[in-house]
Amino acid sequence: MDQEEMGKGIIRLTCPDQPGVIASVSQFLYGKNADIAKVDQFSTDYHNGTIFARFEFNLDGLSDKLNLLKADFTDIAQKFTMNWDIRDASRRKKLAIFVSKEDHCLQDLLIRWRTGELKADISMIVSNHNDMRGIAESFGILYHHVPVTKATLHEAEEKHLQLLEGKADAVVLARYMQIIPSKMIERYQNRIINIHHSFLPAFIGGKPYQQAFDRGVKLIGATAHFVTQDLDEGPIIEQDVSRVDHRHQVSDLKRIGRDLERIVLAKGIRYYLNDKVFVNGNKTVVFH
Amino acid sequence: MDQEEMGKGIIRLTCPDQPGVIASVSQFLYGKNADIAKVDQFSTDYHNGTIFARFEFNLDGLSDKLNLLKADFTDIAQKFTMNWDIRDASRRKKLAIFVSKEDHCLQDLLIRWRTGELKADISMIVSNHNDMRGIAESFGILYHHVPVTKATLHEAEEKHLQLLEGKADAVVLARYMQIIPSKMIERYQNRIINIHHSFLPAFIGGKPYQQAFDRGVKLIGATAHFVTQDLDEGPIIEQDVSRVDHRHQVSDLKRIGRDLERIVLAKGIRYYLNDKVFVNGNKTVVFH
Amino acid sequence: MDQEEMGKGIIRLTCPDQPGVIASVSQFLYGKNADIAKVDQFSTDYHNGTIFARFEFNLDGLSDKLNLLKADFTDIAQKFTMNWDIRDASRRKKLAIFVSKEDHCLQDLLIRWRTGELKADISMIVSNHNDMRGIAESFGILYHHVPVTKATLHEAEEKHLQLLEGKADAVVLARYMQIIPSKMIERYQNRIINIHHSFLPAFIGGKPYQQAFDRGVKLIGATAHFVTQDLDEGPIIEQDVSRVDHRHQVSDLKRIGRDLERIVLAKGIRYYLNDKVFVNGNKTVVFH
Amino acid sequence: MDQEEMGKGIIRLTCPDQPGVIASVSQFLYGKNADIAKVDQFSTDYHNGTIFARFEFNLDGLSDKLNLLKADFTDIAQKFTMNWDIRDASRRKKLAIFVSKEDHCLQDLLIRWRTGELKADISMIVSNHNDMRGIAESFGILYHHVPVTKATLHEAEEKHLQLLEGKADAVVLARYMQIIPSKMIERYQNRIINIHHSFLPAFIGGKPYQQAFDRGVKLIGATAHFVTQDLDEGPIIEQDVSRVDHRHQVSDLKRIGRDLERIVLAKGIRYYLNDKVFVNGNKTVVFH
Repeated sequence: MDQEEMGKGIIRLTCPDQPGVIASVSQFLYGKNADIAKVDQFSTDYHNGTIFARFEFNLDGLSDKLNLLKADFTDIAQKFTMNWDIRDASRRKKLAIFVSKEDHCLQDLLIRWRTGELKADISMIVSNHNDMRGIAESFGILYHHVPVTKATLHEAEEKHLQLLEGKADAVVLARYMQIIPSKMIERYQNRIINIHHSFLPAFIGGKPYQQAFDRGVKLIGATAHFVTQDLDEGPIIEQDVSRVDHRHQVSDLKRIGRDLERIVLAKGIRYYLNDKVFVNGNKTVVFH
Repeated sequence: MDQEEMGKGIIRLTCPDQPGVIASVSQFLYGKNADIAKVDQFSTDYHNGTIFARFEFNLDGLSDKLNLLKADFTDIAQKFTMNWDIRDASRRKKLAIFVSKEDHCLQDLLIRWRTGELKADISMIVSNHNDMRGIAESFGILYHHVPVTKATLHEAEEKHLQLLEGKADAVVLARYMQIIPSKMIERYQNRIINIHHSFLPAFIGGKPYQQAFDRGVKLIGATAHFVTQDLDEGPIIEQDVSRVDHRHQVSDLKRIGRDLERIVLAKGIRYYLNDKVFVNGNKTVVFH
Repeated sequence: MDQEEMGKGIIRLTCPDQPGVIASVSQFLYGKNADIAKVDQFSTDYHNGTIFARFEFNLDGLSDKLNLLKADFTDIAQKFTMNWDIRDASRRKKLAIFVSKEDHCLQDLLIRWRTGELKADISMIVSNHNDMRGIAESFGILYHHVPVTKATLHEAEEKHLQLLEGKADAVVLARYMQIIPSKMIERYQNRIINIHHSFLPAFIGGKPYQQAFDRGVKLIGATAHFVTQDLDEGPIIEQDVSRVDHRHQVSDLKRIGRDLERIVLAKGIRYYLNDKVFVNGNKTVVFH
Repeated sequence: MDQEEMGKGIIRLTCPDQPGVIASVSQFLYGKNADIAKVDQFSTDYHNGTIFARFEFNLDGLSDKLNLLKADFTDIAQKFTMNWDIRDASRRKKLAIFVSKEDHCLQDLLIRWRTGELKADISMIVSNHNDMRGIAESFGILYHHVPVTKATLHEAEEKHLQLLEGKADAVVLARYMQIIPSKMIERYQNRIINIHHSFLPAFIGGKPYQQAFDRGVKLIGATAHFVTQDLDEGPIIEQDVSRVDHRHQVSDLKRIGRDLERIVLAKGIRYYLNDKVFVNGNKTVVFH
């Protein structure tokens, strides 16, 4: 429970764009005595497109009224053929963090979590190595070492799915250097967030900093994206770049990149936790 | 008339925050068979604050229906104590550009205007010098040379006000290096846009690039802001910066700054022309 | 002749890295009573690599002494197996600008040229269309209309080479939308500067803004690079990016991109004109 | 001892600009069989100015030869009236970190230190509170709690000076919220690095994020600078900014600012540790 967020609710919806969507939801909330704090809305095309909308509202006693609110919303939802959800923002989401051997993103997330900036419950850290156990334990977080080889990929996946069952709303790949098999991707569709160390779609595949060095780019980047079946092709949530030049060796690109990765991943996760990210085909709508 | 914008309307409003504002306006537009294309809304504080909202909608035959629409809106406006306006976006705003001796911002605006990027009518260029007449004439724009000295400041102001009468929705100071007297500021309140060559509030006053050089900053900036009675203190619309270092002389800062100024001013004007800028005390709300 | 640059000379050199290179050139200039104003030096690897160096110096009467200086430098150059050049900076370089139908880069360069920021002689504008003739003439610059079709590609190339003969140190492709054939690329090796409208290597090929829109990136970019036989693969001189989001249509990306393209191209050209760009394989060394 | 840096030396010098400085030092190193890896040089004005130069070289057995090298350099140094130093880069500098109650900069530095990115010895953490003792101890670093009140300011200063004696080449103020008295500033001249949470010179003094919020700026910044007797007026080492808008409350500015502060402080310290920062009056020359 997040005391600061008590009474705060969020309606997220997508539906075919048509007149009356915003008005109807606004009217609905008004009729429930809810204060609308924020409306974000985007339409891909107002004649024929899809509307994405997010309403942030305040309603005393929301936790108790949530089920009733959802039941009452059904009429509007059906009328406009909505995909929708209403969430109690005081209920923290649960995150599982996957990591391999590089710890900069993990450490960054853990410090943001301990200082209260990252508003989520971190239910576990999962790794194909044992290296990060000490860090996990110093933060009092469960650590699961699940070795992965080419031969044991699906066995490991089953183990992962068991560990996650009921314990994770989303999975964060904080420099986890193993392939995510398709069953897991399906089960956690648009809920696995990866940090890729290039400004995608440049430098897809392995060793992006080496690729960037070889190509002689003047900017390097990092990309937070949802994981899909197509490697490095999932919907992009957030990106940023830093300036580099000929004096930078690959090791410098990695050092500069670490700061980019930490900040871009932390931003991507924050948008997700605040229910601000919608997936639109292979792209995202992010209400900052 | 802007054919591309035919039928597009914009409602802008501010009022004390209270339940029902967004719902009521949405409902109003829905009742008029208008398609809502975009809703932007911001509240300084949802308990006790001020709400700023902008509705972009499409309505066939808007030009003919505008007065009726305004009349019908009065009920809602009164109920919520709104400051409001409904505008037909196909009616282009009229700009007067003031300039002195440096032409980079002026040239930039004129090229954007000629290519159709700057969607406004430029009704005149006004200068305290005669240097830019050739440029104005090559673009087919009226040029008024109004000399200004300390002694003739108010005489010049009267001349300016006569020239502008009915011919300008807003005034752009594109590196106009004279004081704007208070009568003009009052008459064009929140409609005089200046480009200042620093990241305000740093380096208020004269010679900001020299000041920046002397202080040894590692970033220089530019600021587009509304002009108020307090020099360089008006509401900031847009800012940007560029990186500099010890190798840059004052002349380099000026060169780098020119690009910043051109881009920041053009952005500030575009936001204004699209009715996206609201003034909130000494600050702005800009719906990008 | 550029009066401001009188007496200013530039030595550029590359050679296998070995002890004594910087010392010997410094000593050489000292012996000639030249003031060294700036030394830039980069080695790809100080054991086994290549050194790139640029010396900026001041020497009274340089124009008259240039040939003698070059003759005297031969000893050092041979000792260290240098590729080298000594240039009189007061002799302006000659640029030919190629353009097709989009004029934003051309206009930008012409204004920078007229205000004295772009320190070069623009000897001609060449286009496969006739659209820009008016602009060229308003700036008093020769305009050559050389139509190009698939069938006449090599005929056009011959025409281009004739026009350029003796009239261009470098060619700027300011949104020139035709293939440059190999003979021209060879003759003007590392002297054809193109502006590409993406952060290469992302979105190689046609319609990069459409590609960027389809991929849903959060940053768009522009790249100034030398043209080589491999399309969009030449050495990158300069890059920059701007932030975009889901609200931006392809037309918005184009608008935002125009500003990026103008600034990145102008920077790339300035570095080239100031002898600050070295080609290192498929990469560049740029001494800012 | 830093094994990776064995044999690497750095000459830093400033002197009146005059012909022969670069040549003489290059020649000196050449004569010692040192490989010059990098030369950075800047002159405020090549007629009458001051030259700042940094030579990075490699010389087998440098540690043993350092004193001899220094002795032999004296002739050149006297000839050109240099302020100079030759340093063995394998000898790590010692840092003392001062902190109050906000831990984000401290944590960031400690993680960079543990992963080997921050190449220094952290000899102690000093605080006017006891809050960070646990963090310090988890990293195995000495923690000194030195309470400070207005009445005990100079007593505390004496304590600080005792603690630092022989144990610190430089002092890092990682959000240390107390005044540094003049005796300490003198003793550690240009060796006390502070992180200020604004883009100085904007928002000098207390509560810069509140000031930034009140002024409605569109960018917030952070500044790493040397501490001088004039509060917030010392030479700026590094600055950066992030974009904000009307939706950001003061708490958001603080959150966004924390990332800026961490990165700007880490950069400033890295430049200092690599001997890349020179103080030039109230400005810096930083060879990136």
